[in-house]
Amino acid sequence: MTKAKNTKRIGQARTVDHEHANCKALGQILDRIGDKWTVMVVGGLAKGPMRFNALLRLIGGVSHRMLTLTLRGLEHDGLVRRTVYPSVPAKVEYELTDVGRSLIKPLRALSAWVQKNQQSIESARALNRGEARR
Amino acid sequence: MTKAKNTKRIGQARTVDHEHANCKALGQILDRIGDKWTVMVVGGLAKGPMRFNALLRLIGGVSHRMLTLTLRGLEHDGLVRRTVYPSVPAKVEYELTDVGRSLIKPLRALSAWVQKNQQSIESARALNRGEARR
Repeated sequence: MTKAKNTKRIGQARTVDHEHANCKALGQILDRIGDKWTVMVVGGLAKGPMRFNALLRLIGGVSHRMLTLTLRGLEHDGLVRRTVYPSVPAKVEYELTDVGRSLIKPLRALSAWVQKNQQSIESARALNRGEARR
Repeated sequence: MTKAKNTKRIGQARTVDHEHANCKALGQILDRIGDKWTVMVVGGLAKGPMRFNALLRLIGGVSHRMLTLTLRGLEHDGLVRRTVYPSVPAKVEYELTDVGRSLIKPLRALSAWVQKNQQSIESARALNRGEARR
C-alpha cells in the first residue's frame, strides 16, 4: 500500500519512474534472449518440434539442468510450447510459438555477426593479454 | 604437453573436439554481446565518441561498476577504443571501433524485436504466474 502511494507522484518524476521500469523490463527480456543457450535452443527448434533428448544431443555442451532451465524460461515467456502426448511412456515435445519463431531472424543475424567477427575478437583478446603482461 | 598429445587423435574425435571448442568460443562471445549493458553501451556509442559520465547518464540504471566492467570487456574484445587526451584533468573518451560499429545493426534488430514483443512476453508471464498459483 505504501509503495503504491509512493509511486503516485506527479509530472516528471512519474514519467522517469515509468521509463526506468520500462528500461528495466527491456533489459530483462534482452538478458533472456541474448543468453547463449537461448540462442542455441531457438536455433535448434527452428527446424521443427523436438524432444528434450534430441535437443540435448543437438546443442553440444549444454547440461541437462541448463537445458531444462532454458526451456522453462522460454515457455514462461511464451516463446516455446511444451506438448505432452498421452502415450506410454509419455512423449513430450518442444516447439517454437509464433512469437518464438519471429526471434529466429534477429538471432541468426547476431550469430552470423559472431561467426564473422570471432577471429578479430580473439586476436584483440590475445593482443590485450600480451599488453597486460608487459 | 600431455594435453596436446590427447587432442592429437584422428578422424572424427578430433573434429568433434574442434567443433566443441568452436561452439564454446561462439557462446562466450554471444554471452558478451547479448548482455543488456553491452547492448545499451553499443547503442549509446552509436552516436559518436562519449565520456564515461555522459554514458552513465545516458544509460539509465547502470551502476558505475557495471559500466566500467562493460567498457573494459568491450575494449578487451576490440569493439571499443579508449582514448586518453593529455589535458589537465585528463579527458577520456570511448568510441566504437570499426568492428564495434558493425554490431550496431544486429543489436538494433534485436532491440526492435524486444520492443515489439515486450507486451506479448509480459502477458505470457502474467498468465503463467496465474496458472502456477492455481
